[in-house]
Amino acid sequence: MTAQATGFGGAVAAPVGDDRPWRPLDLDGLPLRDSLRGQSPYGAPQLDVPVRLNTNENPHPPSIGLVDALGKAATLAATEANRYPDRGADALRADLAYYLTPDAGFGVHTAQVWAANGSNEILQQLCQAFGGPGRVAVGFEPSYSMHRLIALATATEWVAERRAADFTLSAEAVARAIERHRPALLFLCSPNNPTGTALPLDVVVAACEAMHAVGSGMVVVDEAYAEFRRAGVPSALTLLPQHPRLIVTRTMSKAFALAGARVGYLAAHPAVVDALQLVRLPYHLSSFTQAVARTALAHADELLGTVESVKAQRDRIVRELPALGLRLAPSDANFVFFGVFGDQQAVWRALLDAGVLVRDVGIDGWLRVTAGLPGEIDAFLAALTRVLAGADVDADGRVTLATR
Amino acid sequence: MTAQATGFGGAVAAPVGDDRPWRPLDLDGLPLRDSLRGQSPYGAPQLDVPVRLNTNENPHPPSIGLVDALGKAATLAATEANRYPDRGADALRADLAYYLTPDAGFGVHTAQVWAANGSNEILQQLCQAFGGPGRVAVGFEPSYSMHRLIALATATEWVAERRAADFTLSAEAVARAIERHRPALLFLCSPNNPTGTALPLDVVVAACEAMHAVGSGMVVVDEAYAEFRRAGVPSALTLLPQHPRLIVTRTMSKAFALAGARVGYLAAHPAVVDALQLVRLPYHLSSFTQAVARTALAHADELLGTVESVKAQRDRIVRELPALGLRLAPSDANFVFFGVFGDQQAVWRALLDAGVLVRDVGIDGWLRVTAGLPGEIDAFLAALTRVLAGADVDADGRVTLATR
Repeated sequence: MTAQATGFGGAVAAPVGDDRPWRPLDLDGLPLRDSLRGQSPYGAPQLDVPVRLNTNENPHPPSIGLVDALGKAATLAATEANRYPDRGADALRADLAYYLTPDAGFGVHTAQVWAANGSNEILQQLCQAFGGPGRVAVGFEPSYSMHRLIALATATEWVAERRAADFTLSAEAVARAIERHRPALLFLCSPNNPTGTALPLDVVVAACEAMHAVGSGMVVVDEAYAEFRRAGVPSALTLLPQHPRLIVTRTMSKAFALAGARVGYLAAHPAVVDALQLVRLPYHLSSFTQAVARTALAHADELLGTVESVKAQRDRIVRELPALGLRLAPSDANFVFFGVFGDQQAVWRALLDAGVLVRDVGIDGWLRVTAGLPGEIDAFLAALTRVLAGADVDADGRVTLATR
Repeated sequence: MTAQATGFGGAVAAPVGDDRPWRPLDLDGLPLRDSLRGQSPYGAPQLDVPVRLNTNENPHPPSIGLVDALGKAATLAATEANRYPDRGADALRADLAYYLTPDAGFGVHTAQVWAANGSNEILQQLCQAFGGPGRVAVGFEPSYSMHRLIALATATEWVAERRAADFTLSAEAVARAIERHRPALLFLCSPNNPTGTALPLDVVVAACEAMHAVGSGMVVVDEAYAEFRRAGVPSALTLLPQHPRLIVTRTMSKAFALAGARVGYLAAHPAVVDALQLVRLPYHLSSFTQAVARTALAHADELLGTVESVKAQRDRIVRELPALGLRLAPSDANFVFFGVFGDQQAVWRALLDAGVLVRDVGIDGWLRVTAGLPGEIDAFLAALTRVLAGADVDADGRVTLATR
């Protein structure tokens, strides 16, 4: 019996069996869906480490002024907390439309925007509306693994195509995949997680045109990291007026430094937003979330100021790693994918031992590091330099740690 | 072009076709899942009416002290808003376990509790883990229609059994339904929405025993309105130690007057919580939501004080309506289901014209009214009395409005 129960004294019934109030039973004893058997929960290890560069968070906390504004917005929301939130999140969607307009190059309309609890929920709603049993979703791996997991969780068949060896993706490869699989959903990720690779717009256009030709589904461009792209790289938002089967998803977790608030959104044809009304849970977005997100959007200039600082650290990592004998993928995101290691798990562990947590996404030979604060990147580069001291490069060009 | 775009001047591209930046396309032109075609979004009309008694909200806003505490908690969360929230929501789950313990009659453990964005997301996660293609969920209608809608959205087959004419449900009927359909999920709602009917525990026990015998799935008791039940009506929580296939869902929207914050939760065997880790979206519950919910739980005594006041208004409605020639279902919730009308839509409209919004859930002859503030119930009873002036009772006992 736990300590908390003692306050209820004699009113608390004796537990069953040993000291726990439940009978022995494990996952295998439950009538779990077959496709979930043997699976593990998604998520990076949450470890208490001095330098956490593993989940692509923005390292800049809100300023004191913004913290105060967020608190005031939440306080205002609290005065009506007994009432359901605005089901359509209209004001937030209008603010997001306004924010997207410069990137889109046209006046984005509220009716083209939808918001949810993180872009994961957006992706889930898209799979619920357009995927499901008997339908196929296609992605190009390595990419954001939640695309696959959300497809599977919504009983959508997942087909994994591959990116090229340098993690790029050609218009021909995308068009061919659409013609072959006639997917209900095609996922493109630009800049791509975990590789940082941005897609040229001609690839997105080819996807939309092929999808229009076969008529089977929708093209989803996951632009979670769009604000970190280098100058001259356009957003797929610019293609929306011409391509009604295009959906662009975004998040406030990264550039807006708001991972804690869970706000994702999309821009698409208004009919797509209508479709999502059929699968969204009613009142899915809390009034606190709506208030917090709107306040952050009102402080967009300040928050996006952190983006330049993050990009500077990203570019520093990109400059420094080759001198350590490493390769990397060109990055338009707030992280860098680097390798190639003979055993990336050993490097991950050695960095962790040095107090630096990066991400092993399970791609043989490669690791991902988030562009953190300058001091954190100092620590990362110093630790990596120490870890790689005396490392060998094998015949395949793979870096192998020295034995100690 | 909308006004918002003018700030971007010449940088904004000309829209396609007419003044809207998209091509003509409606829902039928999208590759929507077949099962969604022709559906309408779920949700009560959100109308601006003086007396809103249609969504079973708690009419008592948080006190000034609680508003302040909620705002402070959100401010604290804002200081780390750039970081992802606690993925397991451990502290919130511990607080919920502590809160449930008196109702459960045993020391509820954190490992038995799971939380999400409203009990709808809990129900969706349950359908994703235990339902899906080729599996069946059973409910007893009329009941909370989201059970059916969430089952369908997760590609779970829905089988609707009926409650008795007085909206009760017998142990035999439940056991028979389980034996016949061998469901992956059986939904019981107690107190039942929209009828207010609480289930005797022997019905829940019969469901668990039948489910154990056929081995096909899980029994879900939706106790969203549990705190409003009358004295002496036990919670299904008390059955958890003996019944590993039992899941009890709750919400903070009603008794905790926190509909705006979207917090639902469940208590079940820890293996069920493990199962939900396989389908929950990572970081599904924002740090603001966790902070707000924990603050409300710390003020449980104050918030649950409103429950007694709401129950008093509910009991007043129950006392008054028979004098108007109406029937009603005994209610253990914060609402009353009343009728029987020849045309409940006409009565709904007449009440709306009088400034009182109640809920027509589409059950022939019946309407649902939420127990609001004393003044709101004054207004409801006065309006209903006026609306029913001169009404006829037909041969079937149905109340029909006088022609005007």
